[in-house]
Amino acid sequence: MTSATSLFSPVEADLRLLTENLQNLIGARHPILYAAAEHLFSAGGKRIRPAIVLLVARATMHGQEITQRHRRLAEITEMIHTASLVHDDVIDESATRRGIPAVHSRFSNQVAVLAGDFLFAQSSWYLANLENIEVIKLLSEVIKDFAEGEIQQGLFRFDMGITIESYLEKSYYKTASLIANSSKAAAILSDASEVEAQNLYHYGRNLGLAFQIVDDILDFTGSTESLGKPAGSDLRSGNLTAPVLYALEEKPYLEDLIDREFEQEDDLEQALALVRDSQGIQRARELASHHAKSAIEHLADLPMSESRQALIKLADYVLSRLY
Amino acid sequence: MTSATSLFSPVEADLRLLTENLQNLIGARHPILYAAAEHLFSAGGKRIRPAIVLLVARATMHGQEITQRHRRLAEITEMIHTASLVHDDVIDESATRRGIPAVHSRFSNQVAVLAGDFLFAQSSWYLANLENIEVIKLLSEVIKDFAEGEIQQGLFRFDMGITIESYLEKSYYKTASLIANSSKAAAILSDASEVEAQNLYHYGRNLGLAFQIVDDILDFTGSTESLGKPAGSDLRSGNLTAPVLYALEEKPYLEDLIDREFEQEDDLEQALALVRDSQGIQRARELASHHAKSAIEHLADLPMSESRQALIKLADYVLSRLY
Repeated sequence: MTSATSLFSPVEADLRLLTENLQNLIGARHPILYAAAEHLFSAGGKRIRPAIVLLVARATMHGQEITQRHRRLAEITEMIHTASLVHDDVIDESATRRGIPAVHSRFSNQVAVLAGDFLFAQSSWYLANLENIEVIKLLSEVIKDFAEGEIQQGLFRFDMGITIESYLEKSYYKTASLIANSSKAAAILSDASEVEAQNLYHYGRNLGLAFQIVDDILDFTGSTESLGKPAGSDLRSGNLTAPVLYALEEKPYLEDLIDREFEQEDDLEQALALVRDSQGIQRARELASHHAKSAIEHLADLPMSESRQALIKLADYVLSRLY
Repeated sequence: MTSATSLFSPVEADLRLLTENLQNLIGARHPILYAAAEHLFSAGGKRIRPAIVLLVARATMHGQEITQRHRRLAEITEMIHTASLVHDDVIDESATRRGIPAVHSRFSNQVAVLAGDFLFAQSSWYLANLENIEVIKLLSEVIKDFAEGEIQQGLFRFDMGITIESYLEKSYYKTASLIANSSKAAAILSDASEVEAQNLYHYGRNLGLAFQIVDDILDFTGSTESLGKPAGSDLRSGNLTAPVLYALEEKPYLEDLIDREFEQEDDLEQALALVRDSQGIQRARELASHHAKSAIEHLADLPMSESRQALIKLADYVLSRLY
């Protein structure tokens, strides 16, 4: 299996620089933020989001060097992502992230709120200083979508009325919006045509959805060790994802278990077994595969390049995590 | 004594509309956010910041109607302020705000983080859609300054090495930056000259500093009832403000009490008595008065109008809170 990191070889040097910059930026101000920064930026993050921005930048510059503004956009993307993770963990009360304690458990809610706010604030400021209204609008849309996603996640907890469409909408807000809008923004900074920029938006949108669906499947098929959190965490917290929504169509008893919010012993284990025994996981795989293919199709008009190939392989890689 | 609210009569109708808009905006999405919104926007906030934006807008439109973008800027200003208060209370673990429970104590840390993020996100989005790079830069500077202020406040806790200059810097980040930059932004949206916009920046900056210094004095001279929080709260938490910094020059024993972080019984009471017995409060009053006067001086070139008069009276009002 290819690793995500090996796909990023065209932008490896830029990614290394980005990690250093971010660590210094957040760390320089305060000892406790320094500790939080080390914790955040050395926790095995794959830098997938900034890598996509840098790859799109290269692919749309058609052989010319990418600009300092592209690199800044990649940093903004990673900062917004990290800020949202840190606050997400406070909101969801998740104790761990990527297998190690979350910032709020390792330090405190206070440090987590502060570190997240600092990252959001710094990214807004960097963004304003890109001095491109269209790019500013795209990324501020992302920040708004994150908040909307959090609200929907709270709203729909244990709600079996949720459809696959509203599940995809929530996944867009939580995951795909950032990838879609930052890909489009990278194309805009390359002076790409409106059509090209829009294609890259759809590449990012579909890739992000595939990515989220795969993540949601792994919550059922992965081990605690490979996930870095207990398997079944989503279901336990009432976050009903694609495999469950499909499984509900075949397994009526699953509804009872969810309805009583797994309050009886073994309820959660039974529910997990029902989902695993259903067509839910297979159907969710097909959904992810559909979006990954659609992502690749939106690259069709982009001239051939090493970076375009990496973007294509990334969509394959997302699916390969399932096997 | 004039009340702040009566000064705002030129913009009263706009302020009423703004309060309704904000309550609907945050409240429409989720029952718990609706409750938080009611809690936030009916908690006796004086709407001083949006009122200043609206007054500056009128004063710089020289008799013409203010625009929809001015009104939007006023909303953004109040949203950023409110978001920062909500997160501030989580970071400081303050149990109350304006005499009633803070959002995180009334609801939870989760709701407070979410409500603050939602307000920051919405304000970034509104801001981007004002489509004025200079205004976007000014307000994103404010968001960055808030985070910087929080970090400094954490950094300097119980630190007697802090000077009046670094105290004023922190007060700028925490309070004056928003008033200064939003006043300037309102002038820019009126197509004011660079000099006029800069004067309004300095009006806001000095007014904001006076406001913060007065607030810090009231922590020593006010009653728990009038403050809506226990008197001496700042000192207790190690936030050393102007009256303390001046008092330290006369009362060496105060240093011992602060140095041991009030760990012995009656330490805090003794420290409060030492500050009240010193010239600290009087000297802080003079500092506030200096900044209030400087604020008014920066309005000298603005043509006479009802709104200009209200801005002048506001600087007097800030000082009148002390008597």
